[in-house]
Amino acid sequence: MITTETKNQLLDIVGSENYDDSKAGRLVYSYDATPNFQSMPDAVISPRNTSEVAEIVKICNSARIPIVPRGSGTNLCAGTCPTEGGIVLLFKHLNKIIEIDEENLTVTVEPGVITLDLINAVEAKGLFYPPDPSSMKISTIGGNINENSGGLRGLKYGVTRDYVIALEIVLASGEIIRTGGKLAKDVAGYDFTRLFVGSEGTLGIITQATLKLVPMPETKKTMLALYQDIEAAAKTVSKIIANKIIPTTLEFLDQPTLEVVEAHAQVGLPTDVKAVLLIEQDGPAEVVDRDILRMTEICKQEHAVSVEVAETEFEAEALRTARRAALSALARLKPTTILEDATVPRSEIANMVKAINDIALKYNVKICTFGHAGDGNLHPTCPTDARNHEEMERVEKAFEEIFMKAIELGGTITGEHGVGMMKAPYLELKLGKEGISAMKAVKSALDPNNILNPGKVFAKDSRKRVVVTK
Amino acid sequence: MITTETKNQLLDIVGSENYDDSKAGRLVYSYDATPNFQSMPDAVISPRNTSEVAEIVKICNSARIPIVPRGSGTNLCAGTCPTEGGIVLLFKHLNKIIEIDEENLTVTVEPGVITLDLINAVEAKGLFYPPDPSSMKISTIGGNINENSGGLRGLKYGVTRDYVIALEIVLASGEIIRTGGKLAKDVAGYDFTRLFVGSEGTLGIITQATLKLVPMPETKKTMLALYQDIEAAAKTVSKIIANKIIPTTLEFLDQPTLEVVEAHAQVGLPTDVKAVLLIEQDGPAEVVDRDILRMTEICKQEHAVSVEVAETEFEAEALRTARRAALSALARLKPTTILEDATVPRSEIANMVKAINDIALKYNVKICTFGHAGDGNLHPTCPTDARNHEEMERVEKAFEEIFMKAIELGGTITGEHGVGMMKAPYLELKLGKEGISAMKAVKSALDPNNILNPGKVFAKDSRKRVVVTK
Repeated sequence: MITTETKNQLLDIVGSENYDDSKAGRLVYSYDATPNFQSMPDAVISPRNTSEVAEIVKICNSARIPIVPRGSGTNLCAGTCPTEGGIVLLFKHLNKIIEIDEENLTVTVEPGVITLDLINAVEAKGLFYPPDPSSMKISTIGGNINENSGGLRGLKYGVTRDYVIALEIVLASGEIIRTGGKLAKDVAGYDFTRLFVGSEGTLGIITQATLKLVPMPETKKTMLALYQDIEAAAKTVSKIIANKIIPTTLEFLDQPTLEVVEAHAQVGLPTDVKAVLLIEQDGPAEVVDRDILRMTEICKQEHAVSVEVAETEFEAEALRTARRAALSALARLKPTTILEDATVPRSEIANMVKAINDIALKYNVKICTFGHAGDGNLHPTCPTDARNHEEMERVEKAFEEIFMKAIELGGTITGEHGVGMMKAPYLELKLGKEGISAMKAVKSALDPNNILNPGKVFAKDSRKRVVVTK
Repeated sequence: MITTETKNQLLDIVGSENYDDSKAGRLVYSYDATPNFQSMPDAVISPRNTSEVAEIVKICNSARIPIVPRGSGTNLCAGTCPTEGGIVLLFKHLNKIIEIDEENLTVTVEPGVITLDLINAVEAKGLFYPPDPSSMKISTIGGNINENSGGLRGLKYGVTRDYVIALEIVLASGEIIRTGGKLAKDVAGYDFTRLFVGSEGTLGIITQATLKLVPMPETKKTMLALYQDIEAAAKTVSKIIANKIIPTTLEFLDQPTLEVVEAHAQVGLPTDVKAVLLIEQDGPAEVVDRDILRMTEICKQEHAVSVEVAETEFEAEALRTARRAALSALARLKPTTILEDATVPRSEIANMVKAINDIALKYNVKICTFGHAGDGNLHPTCPTDARNHEEMERVEKAFEEIFMKAIELGGTITGEHGVGMMKAPYLELKLGKEGISAMKAVKSALDPNNILNPGKVFAKDSRKRVVVTK
């Protein structure tokens, strides 16, 4: 609840054009890309600069009003759903690429920059920002940092965390701190840069970031290997890595996903095979050619029924685009799409895919699986209907079992989507009571009034759904 | 002070052969590689496993006894000097390489493993652990993790933090938590793995770690470029990176350092030039050859008086060994050697080297400078004599000015050595009051009784030496 007095204070800071508490305005920001979560904020505020963010946070801290920072709301963990009301903080004015530094290979940005715009801007200078979440056309870099987003190139290049080297952060107190710098090495104090990356807006509001860039790879090749046996595809993944080849991308799509993606994208994907691996390598031409050749051999040794290298960049881009469209394609099947990202050590990919299929059978639900096989980061996806409560219950049980299996195999409940509200009840599976309580202690230390994206990451005990039966 | 009762409890845990409170035993662990810091611990304890560590921590937490975890004590920031007494915790029994996982490209180790032993063990399997601090022959991996050690290969491969993917940690409460996993992607909760890396033993005791490995580079070449002009050498560094070449190693040595290193190592280093760049590239043969050729051209364009590529691996290894011996060589000059690691964005290397020379002149002290130029991570080193108080005062003032200059250029007070006790008074220069107070809040949250390596990272106000005169 925002009192009239508080509202007037906030209006004084941002002006009436940047404060919206109309029903329509609030409705738009009452949900994000996560199905089944909706909750109205009290107001939507668009600060114009860091000091306005700091002023807003100070007021909210003293009035105990929740703040939910939000980029484009593409996250899949209900991380930006204002589940406890309060204000949604938009970054539409903080949307500038401040500097591309070609001597130090860095880019400094405000959080509201669209990821793809950033990627294009640095590529125009022969530089490369590798993290490429599937939502990059609309996601913001601020959202990527808060969620520690991954993407298709994570296997070789790592995730968002590996590129963030400096942050400007507004703390819950309204104080502004700066971490890191344009520095390859910096051990002055605790690594707050990485602590804040992936903290889902619960520890502070990120208002500026400096990202590391790398030289643009000289060339890139894309290949597709088809399998009539899912395990053979999974084994290929392990064998490529064990042969000490680290491709840029090593994506897996199972048959149900293939069918849906092809129907949607029509790029000529086969739909009569059990699984496909989409493999890319980038780098100097000689190395790319050699790696593609060696990977072709490995695919054949592992009984791929066909291995083809894309002949043109147009063809390769079509394949990549089709893969990136997997979620949108699957989302057309049924009113509700539950997409997860249970992740395992890559040596366990075959076991995990098999377990997912067994679990889907057991609970009689449809689960399509695709994902970043090279990272062990799978996206089991269930097209369903939230209005069918009986089915939803089976879906939920199936995913709970998937999470438990991932943990059993040495994995995690989320590889790149974040915990948010959606995965909070399962976090204890991964971290144990002691781990969660240590993280809660850090949260309380930095946000004693719990105003920063409350209700995320840590589940309220009453909502706990997990029953460990071991 | 350890009471008889507490001593008996500790003896019950580790046995008398692993508990030493003799004067001689304590004296050995009263200092580390940092000059001018010495303080006696009350006892030296060597637990045999994680549960013994947990038991010890519980007792110390309830009796408020400081615990200083210590590897080989090679750190240069007084990070392992028991400045507030208590117990020094040794890892001589926790010294096993638990597993090298060739499918997932990981190695799991106990903290007491010697860094070079780890490197050799994984290289025997064609795998590569890049972080290579100069002390790697005697440093432990636990020490490297706690200090987030860098090294000569940091430019291309990053630092220790970039390779730690899972930790087992004993918290101040004695509880044991596990972070991360053999996972390329994991966003389940805050990034405690990276928070603990570089936390200098102040947040918890690391008892096991899983490290990421990469495939061993196929080949490696080493070259040496000589300059009669320090700025020309510094400009070469910037130009190589701006040309989008990222060499493995890009080391800088000035003339005073060259003279000392050559006298010590006798590998044929020139001593009649103003500066030397030691450059290495690794990777596929074609790429290495091409990069070495391009870098040779850039060195010449920037007026190197000579550029030579090592003809044999023997010759290359001699150059690397000489570089790694720089500190030991410099340490022979005078009774006391103050070695720092002020770090700047690499575009500011030329400015920083010039500033260091000006400051040395101003305070009439000898400062030799060498370091990881590609990282902007310099090691200005002062051979001096701690017994000469008048000179020491000038040395201290000179380094204070060096730190302030580094910060002014967008840099940091420490790139890879850590804060410890030595650099604590300067931390505020980098982080500001707000930054330090946020980090202190995290420390208090995780170690409320301040038993874990107390007095490190955060300066007691009374000892503050910094006078910012801006």
